[in-house]
Amino acid sequence: MPTLYYSPLSRASRVISQLLMIGKLDQVKVVTVDIIRGDGSGRKDPNNPHPEGKVPFLITDEGETIRESSAIMMYLDEFFGSPLGIKQGEKGRGAFLSWMAYSGGVLEPAMVTHFAEINHPMVKSTFRSMAEVGETLNATLSKQPYLVGDKLTIADMILASAFLWAPNLAPDFEAIKAWLHRVTTAQAGLELEAYEAKALESLAERAG
Amino acid sequence: MPTLYYSPLSRASRVISQLLMIGKLDQVKVVTVDIIRGDGSGRKDPNNPHPEGKVPFLITDEGETIRESSAIMMYLDEFFGSPLGIKQGEKGRGAFLSWMAYSGGVLEPAMVTHFAEINHPMVKSTFRSMAEVGETLNATLSKQPYLVGDKLTIADMILASAFLWAPNLAPDFEAIKAWLHRVTTAQAGLELEAYEAKALESLAERAG
Repeated sequence: MPTLYYSPLSRASRVISQLLMIGKLDQVKVVTVDIIRGDGSGRKDPNNPHPEGKVPFLITDEGETIRESSAIMMYLDEFFGSPLGIKQGEKGRGAFLSWMAYSGGVLEPAMVTHFAEINHPMVKSTFRSMAEVGETLNATLSKQPYLVGDKLTIADMILASAFLWAPNLAPDFEAIKAWLHRVTTAQAGLELEAYEAKALESLAERAG
Repeated sequence: MPTLYYSPLSRASRVISQLLMIGKLDQVKVVTVDIIRGDGSGRKDPNNPHPEGKVPFLITDEGETIRESSAIMMYLDEFFGSPLGIKQGEKGRGAFLSWMAYSGGVLEPAMVTHFAEINHPMVKSTFRSMAEVGETLNATLSKQPYLVGDKLTIADMILASAFLWAPNLAPDFEAIKAWLHRVTTAQAGLELEAYEAKALESLAERAG
């Protein structure tokens, strides 16, 4: 059974969402750990094997370690038969790989440099800004309901999660708002909130 | 036949390397385009369909567009039967996905913020710095010849390419230097340099 290192209300929450969505949360061992939060609270948890104390982190049955949300979500999706992915050789595979790489390679840097108010020309020319992110998402989502076509995939989940976490950064396009609504609705009723509340409690108990 | 948009001496060069390595360069249509360079020279080429005028960019036989080097290299590797990748379900798949995501999600931001001399705490806590990149690579490469084990993969090619481009940023560990030497040696004799020189010439002719 793969082991997932997770902390509530973090980048790892979307992995829990993914597992709840496909009904496989009971087939992954979840270890709740503490992390250092944006406001400086929390700590690097000695129980977390991630070399930098971050989450999510996954250890496979073969003992391989996987870091980066996009890689973990792709691995788990493949592990469970690609219910929320596009298999190799299938229509949409190219777009799927592109969006998964876009999440960590473009959206994440654009958001972080936005929040940090960094306007260095080298950073902007390499990663672009939230303006280009909006244009790019809108170009696709004004033609189809999900990033890869008609099927909701982990590409939608990982990219939308950023805007659900920081709604004020959601690009101001009708097609993007409608997509965020679709992705949110698909995840409603998954009991993620209850799961996270319980995890927070267990962390507080351990600290107290 | 997939179409690759490429510019010499750019992030797209590693895709040419990959194709030369597996002897498939003749099975991809390569379109050489101009790009804006780090020093401000060049231009956004109207022949390049990448929405931000960057390279590499790939259009598949199905008309899907793929951006981000890691996604393009994964797609092409799968397209040609995974000669330089680890197939889904095979040993090493988890590590392979992890390193491919690491290239765009960690190494690239760490390098760019290093060059731009950005020390903002939010950027450092999200992406870490070149110091952690060195530790991470060394932890793996002091145990095995390549990132995923005994087989050279596109994960080695994409990560090593960054240090071959900026040798002064190569982390100062014997195991990493030996790995860079192995990856360079494997790509020697591919005639990449001759290919790039010819592409530069054709760009200069078009501009002149």
